[in-house]
Amino acid sequence: MNKDRLERQIRFFLEIDKEKNVFRQTHLSNHGRYENDAEHAWHMAIMAYFLQEYANEKVDIGRVMIMCLIHDIVEIDAGDTYAYDTEALKTQKAREDKAKERIFSILPDDQKSILLELFDEFEACETAESKFAHAMDNLQPVILNDSNNGGDWREHGVSIQQVLGRQVSTRKGSEALFDYIEERLMVHVGRGNLKTEEKKNNCK
Amino acid sequence: MNKDRLERQIRFFLEIDKEKNVFRQTHLSNHGRYENDAEHAWHMAIMAYFLQEYANEKVDIGRVMIMCLIHDIVEIDAGDTYAYDTEALKTQKAREDKAKERIFSILPDDQKSILLELFDEFEACETAESKFAHAMDNLQPVILNDSNNGGDWREHGVSIQQVLGRQVSTRKGSEALFDYIEERLMVHVGRGNLKTEEKKNNCK
Repeated sequence: MNKDRLERQIRFFLEIDKEKNVFRQTHLSNHGRYENDAEHAWHMAIMAYFLQEYANEKVDIGRVMIMCLIHDIVEIDAGDTYAYDTEALKTQKAREDKAKERIFSILPDDQKSILLELFDEFEACETAESKFAHAMDNLQPVILNDSNNGGDWREHGVSIQQVLGRQVSTRKGSEALFDYIEERLMVHVGRGNLKTEEKKNNCK
Repeated sequence: MNKDRLERQIRFFLEIDKEKNVFRQTHLSNHGRYENDAEHAWHMAIMAYFLQEYANEKVDIGRVMIMCLIHDIVEIDAGDTYAYDTEALKTQKAREDKAKERIFSILPDDQKSILLELFDEFEACETAESKFAHAMDNLQPVILNDSNNGGDWREHGVSIQQVLGRQVSTRKGSEALFDYIEERLMVHVGRGNLKTEEKKNNCK
């Protein structure tokens, strides 16, 4: 056994332990505390396994799961960027690129390449697996927020247009799950939990 | 789409959200707060992916990962049973059997069967995948505890014999990782973080 190799792998596992302390803007169901990135990723991967029948294209579910599990590692350095924070979204890529170089480099070089490939595939959202993983990334907080009567949306004054805008990638991964989400979102528009943006009238 | 089917799947995902509030006896690295089951499972699954080269037998890594992810769901009802709590270990199986019936039944019947099969395969620890998943279940807290200078072992007065006893299944999954763990454990015996049980002398 190559001891240096195993030690680098172990150092990587200790590094990603920090993801358990990166908190999101989503509350656990029953409006508990905020959820952290590791919990979110765990939830997504299980959901992917039991929802794979709804993927638009047949997926390699092992690849979807590992993509779900690793997709937020960069947030250890870059922090969680709230999906509807337009200012933070502008700098997100630069922050995450720096983070992935530092954190992924802890692994042995061949595994750094594997992880980069998985991460970049997820980000590009072009393969069947990455599109379905994105669908999970979008569906998971909707399920929690739905169970909490839209509390997180109300708190942040989020609009239906913002949420639907983000769900474009859900549709790429699963038309069926997009339809489910859209239906649930409309319930929350009806309840006033999601705002409706007024159409701009440039003549006024 | 079968709406009732999807609704059962969603209810199951909301049910397992509770696993994020089942706390273990292991602290996060840097002796942070206690770790919860969802975080532990997430960590195990990523470790499995990047350590698969050390498995004694070639494994289907997707199956190892889903086994890691779901293996503690029953603790939502049954609670976490500390690995060295001999009294709690006696009732563990009965508590977990009841829990799996209730929780897994939320899923559509075909998926309940799939989940039962995965769970029972993990518990039986006979296939290459389940043996390797067990190795992860054992290695993950050792890595955290090692990083915390054995604080959790000291706190619970755990002996090297107890920890090694639990590592029998690690060896079934990976001789190489067992050797690594044994070496690290001996360091903690040297530091006094793990007790050494005295041999019983029945003549006294």
